[in-house]
This record gives sequence, C-alpha cells and structure tokens, in this order.
Amino acid sequence: MKEAPVYNDIVLAHNRIKPFIHRTPVLTSSALDKIFDRELFFKCENFQKVGAFKYRGASNAVLSLDKQALTKGVATHSSGNHGAALALAAKIQGVPAYIVMPNNAPTVKKEAVAAYGAAISYCEPTLQAREEGLRGVIEKTGASFIHPFDNSDVIAGQGTAAKELFEDHPGLDAVIAPVGGGGLISGTGIVVKELNRSCRIIAAEPEGADDAFRSFYANELLSSVDPDTIADGLLTSLSPLTYSIIKAKLDDILTVSESNIVKAMKLIWTRMKIIVEPSSAVSLAVLLQHPEKIAERKIGIIISGGNVDLDSVKEWF
Amino acid sequence: MKEAPVYNDIVLAHNRIKPFIHRTPVLTSSALDKIFDRELFFKCENFQKVGAFKYRGASNAVLSLDKQALTKGVATHSSGNHGAALALAAKIQGVPAYIVMPNNAPTVKKEAVAAYGAAISYCEPTLQAREEGLRGVIEKTGASFIHPFDNSDVIAGQGTAAKELFEDHPGLDAVIAPVGGGGLISGTGIVVKELNRSCRIIAAEPEGADDAFRSFYANELLSSVDPDTIADGLLTSLSPLTYSIIKAKLDDILTVSESNIVKAMKLIWTRMKIIVEPSSAVSLAVLLQHPEKIAERKIGIIISGGNVDLDSVKEWF
Repeated sequence: MKEAPVYNDIVLAHNRIKPFIHRTPVLTSSALDKIFDRELFFKCENFQKVGAFKYRGASNAVLSLDKQALTKGVATHSSGNHGAALALAAKIQGVPAYIVMPNNAPTVKKEAVAAYGAAISYCEPTLQAREEGLRGVIEKTGASFIHPFDNSDVIAGQGTAAKELFEDHPGLDAVIAPVGGGGLISGTGIVVKELNRSCRIIAAEPEGADDAFRSFYANELLSSVDPDTIADGLLTSLSPLTYSIIKAKLDDILTVSESNIVKAMKLIWTRMKIIVEPSSAVSLAVLLQHPEKIAERKIGIIISGGNVDLDSVKEWF
Repeated sequence: MKEAPVYNDIVLAHNRIKPFIHRTPVLTSSALDKIFDRELFFKCENFQKVGAFKYRGASNAVLSLDKQALTKGVATHSSGNHGAALALAAKIQGVPAYIVMPNNAPTVKKEAVAAYGAAISYCEPTLQAREEGLRGVIEKTGASFIHPFDNSDVIAGQGTAAKELFEDHPGLDAVIAPVGGGGLISGTGIVVKELNRSCRIIAAEPEGADDAFRSFYANELLSSVDPDTIADGLLTSLSPLTYSIIKAKLDDILTVSESNIVKAMKLIWTRMKIIVEPSSAVSLAVLLQHPEKIAERKIGIIISGGNVDLDSVKEWF
C-alpha cells in the first residue's frame, strides 16, 4: 500500500501549489445559521479553478513529479472533475495530459477537458475499459498515472483546503466534508487532527453510495455495489490508502437520503446565492438529517465543487 | 419634483447604513475575462441582505426619517425586492412596515416579506389597486411612504454600492448597471461622475422594457407600455427624478434581447458559480450584444440581486 501523507506533506503541498490555485473564500450565512441554530463556515471550493477542490490535488501531483517524468506528461481516467483538474494543472506546467473518458460522460465535462488542451481518448463506460484505455495510453506515451485519490500527493493537495479553512477560522468545533473515493476527507482529516485534536471530523455520504460508512463500522474495506445517487462525485469506493487514513483520523461517517441532499442544495442555492453540485450539498444534508448527532456549535463545511449541468436542475428541483 | 441627491448625500448615506448592510465582495472570473476579452469586476449585491441592492436604499430611507415619523413606521407597495428590503430595514430599527402586495406576487416574495415581520395587505394586481391600497394603509397608520426609487434617500442608498466598488477598484474605465425605475443607475451615475469623470457609465435595459432607452434618446420622459421581459425587476418606468439624473449623468443606455439575458445569466451561473436574477444578467448581456460599443478594458458590473424562484429555472435554461 502507498504511504499516507503526514501534516508536513500538506504544508509542503500548499507552498508548492499556492501560486497556481485560488485561495477560496470562507462564506457565512446568517439565514442558514438561524435555520440550523449553529455557526456555519463554508469553505467554497466551488470557486476554485476548474470549479472543484480536485485542482489542488492534481496540481500537487503534477508539481511533485521529477523533471524527466514531468516532460512525458500525466494521464488518468475520469468522467468528472479530476480529469479537468489534471488537464489544467498539466497545461499550466506546459506538459501533456492524456485523459481517458467514458463515451457517455456529460458533454460539459468533455468540453471542459478539451478546452484545457488535454488529449482525450474515449472508451466504453466500464471500469475495465477505462483501465485498459489508460494502460494503452501510458504504454504509448510514458506519461505518469495520477489516480484521482489513491495517491499520496493528491491527498496532500486536497488537504490544503482544510488548512486554509483553519488559518481563517482556527476555532472550529467540527468539520464536515463529503466522502467518495476519500481523497478530500483524508487530507482534511490529517489537517484537522494536527491543528485541533478536539475538533471532530465527520464524513458525509449518500445512503445510495455508503461504502465508506459500511467500511468504517465493519472495520474492513468494503466496496459499493451498484451505487446510485445524484451526488455523482461520490459514486466511487475507497481505496486501501484512503480507508486506512479514514480509520485513523475520522470521528464519524453519517449517511443522508437523496431528498435531504436536494433540500440542502436548494437551501445553499437560494439562501447563499452560490451554485454547488449535489456532492457538495451532502455535508449540509448531514445537519438536516442528523442534527442530534452533531452537538457542536462552530462547524466548518467543505463545499467541494460547483460544476453542474443546468439541464439537470429541471430534474432536481 | 424631488431634489436629486449629490455625492455627499451618498457619503452620508454610506456612514448611516454601514453598520446594517453587508459590504459585498467584488468578484472576478478569469474564464469570463477570457470570453469577453476584458477585465470584469462584479459588485455582488446578490450577497447583500435580502439578496439585493434594494436593502441599501431602504435602509437609508428608514434611517433618514425623523424620530417621530420613524415610530409610525414605513409603507410601500411592492411585488419584489423593495418590499422585502423595507420590511427588514424597518424590523432592524424596531418599527412597523406595511407592505401592499399584488395577490399574484410569487410565493417566495410573499414569504420573504412575511418572514421579516411586515404587515402585508394584498390587493388586485393593478397599479391603481396598489396605490389605493397604500393610501388606505397610510391614512390608517400614519406610516411614511418609501417609494422604491422616486425618493432621494433611496437613490443615495443605492449609490453606496458603486462607492464601495470604486473604493476597491478605483481604476475602472466603465461601469454597467441595469435600469428599471432608475434608482440604482441614478445613484451609480452620481458616484461614477464624482469619483472618475472619464469613466463611462452605461445603463443596461431589456428590449422588452426599453422606456429608459427611448426616453434618453427622445429627450423626454416616456413610459413603458405593456413591458414584457424575464428581467422582472426592470419592468417599471422611470420617474421624473430618476429621468433627470440619468440625463445628467449617463453616457449611454443599451438594450438587450431576452435570449442574450438568458445566455449571460447562464454564463454567470456556470462560470462564476453564483446565482444572479435575470435583471442582474442584463449588464453582462450588453457586452454579449454590443461588444463594439464598449471599447473600455476594465469594466465594473453591478450585480443587482440573486432572488430567483428555482421553479423558473426550468423555463429559462
């Protein structure tokens, strides 16, 4: 298994990526504070480049390659934000990015990756086809594979969002972030437990893709079978690496229903006037569904991204 | 005719309302800068209390009343943001607000006004019924009528948004703001021409409600007849007061099509990840429709508000 990053890796990652990322704002909303009877601090990675925190991890991974590897470029398979993030991170360093995408990926995602100048190869929408496609690309180009979360440099990069959140608001009692493959929550967990041991860290997961929740309480790594949720960034299962960090750092994982995800998303859109994707609303949905399980007052919430296809809005609301 | 405010009135208004309003952020977007080949600075009044700049003018009007008048409260007729803004401004000063609303006003607007504790009277959705309803309320209560824009204190309050924009970005070459009744653009014009005479100020108006455009070029105050646009905050016609300020301060008024309003709104939602109402998108729509008429490089855009009924999204996109 790969080695888990430690807090100092996140400090180094932050120094490395700072010139290339946005320092995103932490927003508050008196309307939502009143509704939830708490003080909420939203770390807005929907305002990050590429519209998601994924740009932090991708940038750190690209910048951590040695010169020779860097020249040959980077590769990944992705139907979502990681592909776009890696494409832009490579473009900014002037090296090629090779992205294998399932041919049924949303048009906006295909266009975003193409706009960042990546070389896209399309494949059938199965994990096997994606992995085979990626293997072919790597054999041909010698590019380095950057996994979306099973990668220490990526995890260290994702942790920089929580580091900034604590720099702005050191006194948080709890932090909630969504869990899909576990890159964001792993980096967040490492930061939280280093900077404030008494601050609780809670992962938010859709009931329809609850592999992290089941793994956490079964004490073994379990995968999702046919996960189904509108939070399409959270369909992935944990890797051994992210599972081990989650077991070591997290205080709890709470799951939420689809209707609470939609309700939370609508609250954020209409009260805060910001666009967040369903995967980001899962954290606030935890406060809607399990208020009794979170007694803390000052709560940091990591908004993971804001990339939505406005056509989907018709189905959501 | 009422007297137009001067720049010093806006300075006084700003000092008066500062403790009660949000100092809203000025956001930039490298994606939009690239698309429009300009540097755009968005003054985000969608993040203002009540979700719109209207809270500035309403607050200044309430705070400008003498003590005796203040005790009796304030009244207006409104189907939109001004009603909610006046309700909250009165609530915060602990005085009653009486809002006459057409019975067909959107439910979200009715709920917002009610949530701020105002006394609502419903009337038929005609201007005559609204004015009669208001007269009745004022006779009964002795409340002061606060017109949404034909009021110097309201105009001075609205101007504080542009004042903050120039404090943050003094070097703007042009400013674009939407025009409906003309309160926002009047206050903005007074500020711009005081702080930087060479900065052009342009009003943006929907083709379907182009009374300000026609008045400006006909050199006489003309009203809209059956205005129709999705920018529902801009249906109103100018008053003699706002017309006179607009003639004195503005460099141009440009009108835009409905399809460009929707296109601009979609660009702001998807690229900036913020929610703006159609009336706010009209300013960016000007750059889509008339790029050749705006040669300036650094452009301030006043985002007037972000109150949307998510049900409408289905019709827009």
